[in-house]
This record gives sequence, C-alpha cells and structure tokens, in this order.
Amino acid sequence: MLLKEMDRRELQIFKEECEKEYAAIKARGLKLDMSRGKPGADCLDVCAGILGELKEPAVSKDGTDCRNYGMLTGIAEAKELFAELLGVSFNEVIVGGNSSLCLMFDSVMRAYVRGVYGGGQPWSQCRKVKFLCPSPGYDRHFAICEYFGIEMLTIPLKSDGPDMELVERLVSEDEEIKGIWCVPLYSNPDGIVYSDDTVKRFANLSPKASDFRIFWDNAYFTHHIGEPHTILNLLDECKKSGKPDMPLMYVSTSKISLPGAGVSALGASENNIKQISSLLGVQTIGYDKINQLRHVRYFKNYAGVKEHMEKLKAVLAPKFKLVLDMLEHELSEYGVLEWNKPDGGYFVSVNTLNGCAARVIQLCNEAGVVMTPAGATFPYGKDPCDRNIRIAPTLPPLEELKPAMELFCICVKLASAEKLI
Amino acid sequence: MLLKEMDRRELQIFKEECEKEYAAIKARGLKLDMSRGKPGADCLDVCAGILGELKEPAVSKDGTDCRNYGMLTGIAEAKELFAELLGVSFNEVIVGGNSSLCLMFDSVMRAYVRGVYGGGQPWSQCRKVKFLCPSPGYDRHFAICEYFGIEMLTIPLKSDGPDMELVERLVSEDEEIKGIWCVPLYSNPDGIVYSDDTVKRFANLSPKASDFRIFWDNAYFTHHIGEPHTILNLLDECKKSGKPDMPLMYVSTSKISLPGAGVSALGASENNIKQISSLLGVQTIGYDKINQLRHVRYFKNYAGVKEHMEKLKAVLAPKFKLVLDMLEHELSEYGVLEWNKPDGGYFVSVNTLNGCAARVIQLCNEAGVVMTPAGATFPYGKDPCDRNIRIAPTLPPLEELKPAMELFCICVKLASAEKLI
Repeated sequence: MLLKEMDRRELQIFKEECEKEYAAIKARGLKLDMSRGKPGADCLDVCAGILGELKEPAVSKDGTDCRNYGMLTGIAEAKELFAELLGVSFNEVIVGGNSSLCLMFDSVMRAYVRGVYGGGQPWSQCRKVKFLCPSPGYDRHFAICEYFGIEMLTIPLKSDGPDMELVERLVSEDEEIKGIWCVPLYSNPDGIVYSDDTVKRFANLSPKASDFRIFWDNAYFTHHIGEPHTILNLLDECKKSGKPDMPLMYVSTSKISLPGAGVSALGASENNIKQISSLLGVQTIGYDKINQLRHVRYFKNYAGVKEHMEKLKAVLAPKFKLVLDMLEHELSEYGVLEWNKPDGGYFVSVNTLNGCAARVIQLCNEAGVVMTPAGATFPYGKDPCDRNIRIAPTLPPLEELKPAMELFCICVKLASAEKLI
Repeated sequence: MLLKEMDRRELQIFKEECEKEYAAIKARGLKLDMSRGKPGADCLDVCAGILGELKEPAVSKDGTDCRNYGMLTGIAEAKELFAELLGVSFNEVIVGGNSSLCLMFDSVMRAYVRGVYGGGQPWSQCRKVKFLCPSPGYDRHFAICEYFGIEMLTIPLKSDGPDMELVERLVSEDEEIKGIWCVPLYSNPDGIVYSDDTVKRFANLSPKASDFRIFWDNAYFTHHIGEPHTILNLLDECKKSGKPDMPLMYVSTSKISLPGAGVSALGASENNIKQISSLLGVQTIGYDKINQLRHVRYFKNYAGVKEHMEKLKAVLAPKFKLVLDMLEHELSEYGVLEWNKPDGGYFVSVNTLNGCAARVIQLCNEAGVVMTPAGATFPYGKDPCDRNIRIAPTLPPLEELKPAMELFCICVKLASAEKLI
C-alpha cells in the first residue's frame, strides 16, 4: 500500500513497526562505510599481478629510461594507450599521475593563475567566475569550485544529460560563466548517459566567455554493468563545430586498476596540450613513468582494458543487482522512493520524499552504516529538495551489502512515515 | 701563466691554439646532455630490485589496503620513514608523490589561492608579493616565482649561507616579502652548507609579513660525496624561537631511488600540516600509496637509506673527482676560472671571468655538449656578472664525462682569451 494513501492511524502503526525493525538492526552493531565510491577488495583482486608486472629494465619503446627524469607529458606507450581510451590522437594527450581529480584541479588552477589557451585574463583577475553544475553531480567537482571561489549555478539533469536549453542560454549571455562540469557517461550519481544530441549541443555552444571550458570527466567510460552504452567523442564534435579548444576530457584507471596507484590522463586539442605542457614543467618534474609503463605492460591496449572490465563487471554487477532487487522488494509498494537503474558507473542514485534524505542518512549513520552525506550531490552540499541519496554499492562484499541495504530500506520507510504523519 | 699577465701577442697565440683544439674536439661529434642534475644509468642501477620489491598483498602496517583510496597524508610507515629523514614527528609530515618540486609548487599555489595557516589574505589578493632568492640558486625555484608573478630579489650567497644581515633587514622592513628559497645542505649549485649560526638566524627572523614562509628544500640531505656535513634542524630551531609555522621543509628520494618514480615529503608544524591537509583533499584523492609502501619495504629506515647512499657515493664520487681534477689540471695555471669543491650535492659550480659564461655555454653547445644555460642559476635567468656555470657531472659515464670536460676546459680558455684580447 502506498504510504500517502494510509490514514494517520495506519501510518502510526507502520511507523512503530519500522521503529522496531530499526531498533533490532541497530542492535546488531553494523559497522560499514558506504560513503564513497570505493572499490571493494574483491574488485581490487581482479587486478592481481599488476604490482609484480614490472621489473628492471624499465625502458620505454622509444628507448627512454623510465627510471629517470623527463617525458613530462608521459611515456610514448602510455600516451598511445590513453589516447586510445580518450579517443584522441597522440599529441592530444597528457598522461598524469594517480589522480584525475588532480588533473582537473590543476586545469582550474592554471586557468585561475595563468588563464587558458587563447583566452582572456587569468580567472583570479576576473571580478567573478561562475561554473555550471549539472546536479545531482560529483561533490569533488563542486569542492574545486569552492576552493577557487567559483560561484556554482545548478543545472537540472534530465534523462539524456543536462538541460541544454538552459546551458545554451546561460553561457551565451553571461561572460562570467567559464566552465561546466560533466560526467557524460554513467553520470555520478545518476548513471545518466548523455545522448548524441546533448553532446552535439555541447560542441555547438556559443559561450560569451572566450575562455569557457567544458570539463568532461569521463570517469566511467568503460564501467558497464548492463548493456554497454557509448557516447559521441566531444573533441571530435568540437572540431566539427570549429571549437576544438573548448573541451578538456579526463579519464583514469583509478576504478580499473588501483585507486591508490592508478594512472590518469587529460585529452584536449593540441593547442590546449601545448599551453598546458609549457606550464606543467614549472609544476612538476613529471609524473610517475614507471607506473605508466607498469600499466601499459599489464593492460597492453584498449582491448586489454575491456577484457579486464568484463572480469570487474562480474564482481560489480551482483552488487548492483542486490541493491536494486532490495529497493524493489522492500520499497516499491510504498511509493516513497524513486531510483535509477544504471547500466554502468559506480552508483545507484535515489530520491526520497522531499525533505527526507538528511533524516535517512542520519538514521543509517546512527545504526552504524555511513552513507554519502545528504546534499553532497548538489553545489554547496545543499539539495534544495533534501531528497537525493547516492548509494555506493561497490565497497562492501555481498554478505555485508545485504544487511546495509536492509537497514537503508527501513530508514527510508521510517523517515517517510515520520514525514507524512 | 696567468692569462691576464699575457701581452696581446701571447694572448693571440694562446687563442689560436685554443681554436685549433676546439675545432679538433668539435670534429669528434660529441653528443652529450649535461644540462640537468640527472642521475646516470649507473646511479639508477644502484637501486636495482626496487621495482620488484612489492607484490600483493599491499597492506600497510595499520591494516590499510594501500591499493585503495584513502590516507591522504601518506601511509603510516612512509610517514614514519620520512619523519625520520626530515627530523620531524609523525604529525609533522605529509608524504607526497614522485616530485618534491610539485610539493613546493603546491605550497606556493595554496598560499596564492587560499593563504597560509595563521596568515593574512591569499597572496593573489596582495598588491605585490616578493621572494628572496639566494643566488646562485635553483632555476626551478625561480620558475615557480615567475609562474605566480612573484617578484624575486637576489640575495648573495656566502660560504656559510645567504647574507643573513641583508635577509634580516629586508624581511623585517618589507611586508611584501613572503618567502625565501633555501637549499641549506650542499646548495644547488654551489654545494654550500648553511652554518649553525645561519640556521639559527633563519629561525629568529622577524618578518613584517605574518604569512612569511621559509621554503627549505633539503634536496641533498643525504647526498654526501666527501666528509658528511649536517645542518641544524630548522623546525626545531623555529620551535625554540617561538615561530614553528615559519618553515616548510622538503625532501625526496628522486636522487636516492628513481627520479621517475620516487617519493617526496613535506615537513612542517602540526598547524601547517593540518591546514595543508584540509586543502589537499580538494586537490587529489591522495598520492600513490603503493609506491610509498614499495619505498619503505626497500629502504626500511634512515639507516637503510644511508647504506644505499654509500653505494651511490661510490658511483658519484669518481665523477666529481674527474671534474675537479680536470679543472685543476687544465685551468688552474691560467687564473680564468674559480670553482667550488663540494662535499655533497649534485653540482660543481664555477665562475668564469665576468662576461664569459654565456660564451662558454655557446661554445660547448656548438660542439655537441649541452650545458645548463648561462644565467639559469639567477632569478629571471640573468646572471648580473655573466660568470656562473653549473656543471652537472652525474649523468654521463666516466668515459663520456672526460671528453665533455676536455671540451668545457677548452671553451673556458677560448672564451677567456677572446674576452681579454
């Protein structure tokens, strides 16, 4: 029975039952952290052997001794591999260290301190800088904006990507809008896949700001859970529209190999890459080339990555299935929760009744399961409807995920009943 | 015979002889890069085995799975090791990635964007920011200043460190002076060792700027070639003087293990470390923990590092000896070059007659030996006397170093004769 169709007495009984169940599960003393999109040990084990993959000699195919200084933009074979993953050419890629977040941060930092290729003054010299933030989105993108004092404008996310009409209008009108954050394939947290039309409209944006950049965080480019989706290549589309310098595209192996020791990469136009490289040499003596070589030796090429991802999918798909099955089984009859069924990515995004998300998280935390804080998926950590919750099912093994989801479902029911009474 | 005591005819004959020798050596078609302080393959081989050191499981002593996210400031055993190397306590260290240059850049970047612990406004909001630059110094320090538009003031380096009277006066008078770059042990390029008195005077500085920082790049803390020198610990001294937040100290294993895949660290007061950590989490998901663990497993502790450095010294000392012997043998009689005899570090610094350094470098380059550009050791790449040259003897094997130094000595003689005629 739908909760909203219950009368006050029925709701009261329902709530009391939930409280009993909640007390019972709380007494079990769970202790679980589902707050971040962290792989479980079972995911990491899929990459077994990578650490021992590389021994001396560590010589790149072009003869470079990877042990030494040099090769600021990456070793040749790593640039080839990541160019393939990004869908760009050899001169359109910089292979970085273990954090694509760091590459993104540095892109904003460079724009702030020095300005972008072909653009105006450094953003630090602008009266105000604004970014568009399709939301729900990735909290660490928003944190970068806050770091640099960049004002965030929330953009609604539709089933095929951001509200492009709004995006088009805003960027064409407001010179202070310098960027937009996108996770175009299996968006974080909704798992939304940008349609071809959306990508084309991005490529054909006419920003008022000459130094506008699309921050294209393709974190889940190969993280399929169901039937694989693909998206158009933004750089290709931007070349067609005559705006090749607009996108900055990012990938990493953090959730392919090891988050603690992966490799990241930036894909962009040659002009962007040249400008970035010239500044990068001041910032670092170069990224870890040995780890780049280790990754190439382990994965070989995109086909090798895909093969690996099939094994990872076998670990991850059951976790997603368990979450979705439990939501369906425990909650569908009450009409108090909506959720996505992602075909890839790392999250299941749910919407509670308005005004219930923070309470659900509080109840979960108090019973020993730490979830992503409510609001985290919106700029400034403030969900206007207090309803979105990001479930990260990847870390716990199945046997721990089950009680955690049992708890979560009870908390949703309890918080909803509290709300409706 | 001293060149300055030759008459014009003698000089002319001397010059012509030099030209012949130069032409002969040029004809040999040398091709050598001595432009940077790069280790040779023989140095890197000393670290053989480190790449294969680590296999799964990669678990930290506190149980952390180093393959996964987390441990922003470093894994426990790496913090212990680098705290020992830096002479600080566990909570006074952040273990970074493979580039201490990157840690230094980020320190300036954070100050520029967000300000320092306990300090005033971000440096980007200041009308002007100035740094003191003891010179000759490290060109990459100066490049960081240029990146952020920081004005550089050259400070003369004496045999026991920077001219402290000048440093003391300037920092106490000028609020725009926010920092100073120091390589306190075996300075780059002069190999100067800061005396106890110098370090104490640093610790007792009374800067007008509340956000003044000493950037203490202890790059060569364990790079002894001759009798080992030690310096006072700046953080200890700053605690005594009641100014614990003034220093930021850096080390790395770039020239201990592998430049392409080393580990760096920052040592500072707990307050500094806390402020930095809170900002660092926006910038990165954390540094490569696997490589941190690999290094600790390989070196174990400071004693292990010292043992390793003895082996490295056996490779490096003969290279330094060859350079110094050849300078002595080829040039001492002419009085046209002064040089240091470093007990450690990575360079031999020489001074030509005024106005000759650029010409010497040009002659070397044209004969196939690339040297550090003249002027590189001074702010803005401008040596006021055009006399300082940084010789980096570490990269070539001995059999290549010899002809390179032969060439160098001829170029010095030739350029000097040209100058005096």
